Amino acid sequence: MTDNIPDMWFNKLFSGRAMNVPRSEIRELLKLLERPDVISFAGGIPHADMFPSDRIRQAYDRLFGTTDTWHRALQYSTSEGYPPLREWIASYLTDQPTPWTKENIIVTSGSQQALDLLARLFISPGERIAFTRPSYLGALQVLRFYQPEFVAIDEDDEGILIEPLIAALDKGLKFIYLIPDFNNPTGISLSLRRREQVIDLALARGVPIIEDLAYVHLRYNGENIPTLGTLALRRLNSQGSEHTPIVQIGTFSKSICPGLRIGWVRAASVVIDHLTVLKQSVDLHASTINQMVVADILTDSFDTCIQKEKAFYRLRMEAMLDALKRYFPRNISWTMPEGGFFVWVNLPEGLDGSRLLESAVTNYKVAFVPGGAFYCDGTGKNTLRLSFSGNEVAEIQEGIMRMGELLHKELCVPKVPKHAIHATSKHL
Amino acid sequence: MTDNIPDMWFNKLFSGRAMNVPRSEIRELLKLLERPDVISFAGGIPHADMFPSDRIRQAYDRLFGTTDTWHRALQYSTSEGYPPLREWIASYLTDQPTPWTKENIIVTSGSQQALDLLARLFISPGERIAFTRPSYLGALQVLRFYQPEFVAIDEDDEGILIEPLIAALDKGLKFIYLIPDFNNPTGISLSLRRREQVIDLALARGVPIIEDLAYVHLRYNGENIPTLGTLALRRLNSQGSEHTPIVQIGTFSKSICPGLRIGWVRAASVVIDHLTVLKQSVDLHASTINQMVVADILTDSFDTCIQKEKAFYRLRMEAMLDALKRYFPRNISWTMPEGGFFVWVNLPEGLDGSRLLESAVTNYKVAFVPGGAFYCDGTGKNTLRLSFSGNEVAEIQEGIMRMGELLHKELCVPKVPKHAIHATSKHL
Repeated sequence: MTDNIPDMWFNKLFSGRAMNVPRSEIRELLKLLERPDVISFAGGIPHADMFPSDRIRQAYDRLFGTTDTWHRALQYSTSEGYPPLREWIASYLTDQPTPWTKENIIVTSGSQQALDLLARLFISPGERIAFTRPSYLGALQVLRFYQPEFVAIDEDDEGILIEPLIAALDKGLKFIYLIPDFNNPTGISLSLRRREQVIDLALARGVPIIEDLAYVHLRYNGENIPTLGTLALRRLNSQGSEHTPIVQIGTFSKSICPGLRIGWVRAASVVIDHLTVLKQSVDLHASTINQMVVADILTDSFDTCIQKEKAFYRLRMEAMLDALKRYFPRNISWTMPEGGFFVWVNLPEGLDGSRLLESAVTNYKVAFVPGGAFYCDGTGKNTLRLSFSGNEVAEIQEGIMRMGELLHKELCVPKVPKHAIHATSKHL
Repeated sequence: MTDNIPDMWFNKLFSGRAMNVPRSEIRELLKLLERPDVISFAGGIPHADMFPSDRIRQAYDRLFGTTDTWHRALQYSTSEGYPPLREWIASYLTDQPTPWTKENIIVTSGSQQALDLLARLFISPGERIAFTRPSYLGALQVLRFYQPEFVAIDEDDEGILIEPLIAALDKGLKFIYLIPDFNNPTGISLSLRRREQVIDLALARGVPIIEDLAYVHLRYNGENIPTLGTLALRRLNSQGSEHTPIVQIGTFSKSICPGLRIGWVRAASVVIDHLTVLKQSVDLHASTINQMVVADILTDSFDTCIQKEKAFYRLRMEAMLDALKRYFPRNISWTMPEGGFFVWVNLPEGLDGSRLLESAVTNYKVAFVPGGAFYCDGTGKNTLRLSFSGNEVAEIQEGIMRMGELLHKELCVPKVPKHAIHATSKHL
């Protein structure tokens, strides 16, 4: 009876589109890098010291204080999300009075799910979608299931390039995915001038833009730039919110904490309405209690949280940029972000980030993400992503110094003085 | 510039497969039924009095007690889930010692997401999948996105019928979805004899069965029956867990509470491995803190919870079955469940559940779900689903009496004595 069940018999049953979904190299890499003696710039997750721990605890206490509220927090709820949370999101980062209401908001299980639901709603197999190259890995990973054609467009220091974007639009695009503020992985922000050009194109062509606001609140230097969403609504009339091509997504993972898994979409109500049916089908709704905890914190503590975070991460970004200047060879360049979590490094042609990583971890006890992972076309091997969000300032200085030694050696240029790396690492 | 953005311009951009996903009629209906003067048997959600409220609060307190633990609870975590939770699930409802390890478990955002991930992994468009008719709506809703062909197979009082299942297998099936214990919506359980037949077929044909254990712990009468998973492993050798065609899914929504959104899949590790990549792509991971809260409760309180729940819901099920016998006309039949949340009613041909509902809500202040919603083929209009999980015993007696009056009137058979319905409803 059981002879028909061969080893690994399940393998032949899996769908082709599911097998399209790649493993996230970063998450696999992170598992290997949990060695305490390695200084890791690979992560890119928020620092636990920035979680408003006591305030989160207080939010749970408040929910528990009233039996009806506590019961509500533990029960099933609506797929669109907890109304007070949706109302807060409707007013976030907009001109005032906001053109949005809670009918324009759906709460998701993190912004990763926002992307999944939007891909589910928009993409038919073979349709073309555009994003910057290099690209956010989480987006590439989830979008691939829906079998689109990827159109990767290069950036300069003002963000996505307009000429190739026009060429891509001429051939047809289903949507454009952008992280205009402190892009992951490059840290580059889209300039105001370039934002206006992108909006011109979206409005003229009737092509939606998914604007990912993951890092928008984490600006450490320079002036705030209005979001694509705000700029588009300024062009449209007062009923513009039902006509705008900009679909915004966001998360509380970087402003409050990731463990609650609360993100959102803000868009024309027809989009939200369809997303709600899809959300219902995939997991009914985001955790009720987690939504209520976030909503409670937002009543009085969002600004305090982000001010604290900005001061904390600014120190780390500046330490990294200073150390890069001090320790890296001259023929290596990197981006100059004004916020977010990442600096992007371009190595001379011929250096391979993956190969460097081996030597870096083994011999120099320092880690990063080889940049090739962020290219959907096999290029970019001579790039690296460095994250400064999870480290102390002294670790950043030490780690970049170690990387500088490795790079000097690889490039056969004069080295900075050798330090006793293994001895000092314990004190970091 | 904005003339190219017409009203509702987004509508033409949505994908065909997304438009396939139906709204859940029940969830839409529930919104209309939140009128306090209506006795509703429509829901089917757990009773808030059954949430272990103080124990849940204690679990949060314990996490908060240690800074490292609290930080971990609020941080990103692995896509497969919190290891102690996966270890508990590995031992749940199995022969001992369990053949499963945590490598056979992934934690999901409720069992609804377990179904979504399995559909994503297995279904290519046009493939045939089988389930009972009538069917669990949440399964129909999420599966439809993946564009399978639905094969609905009738049940008798021992569960799914074997002859039509064989006929369906002869034409090819990708998988079979079953709720063997207290099926939603009928309340029918698959008999032991029938389970053995279903396993014979699955093993002989190499066709996976998704076994949904949502209600398995809620047996109020009769003997426990081993799960399909356990029966299949008894047939296979000691390494059977990597070869079994049974993929089990479950949830803590009915045993602890739904608001935490914690469910799971238990299967051969090759299945779990692929589900983990898909889970990572759709929402990274289930809420860390919620997984840790559930794991803490499971250390000492699962049995206490389910004993309390069984006593509580047994009273309600018996009240409903007694009231049906007492108040319903003789030519109406219903299922005799031994657990779960539901009783299924068959009306004489020609009576339409949807039409009855209007009169029931307006004139009798009582509600239920018309059974047609649970059929994917437009049949079943003369059926109803009644849930007893959310009501007090006196409400159940009163509500069934009101339905009996309506049905006597519709069928023109002698009525039970008329009660002063509107006067008494306030006291329930």
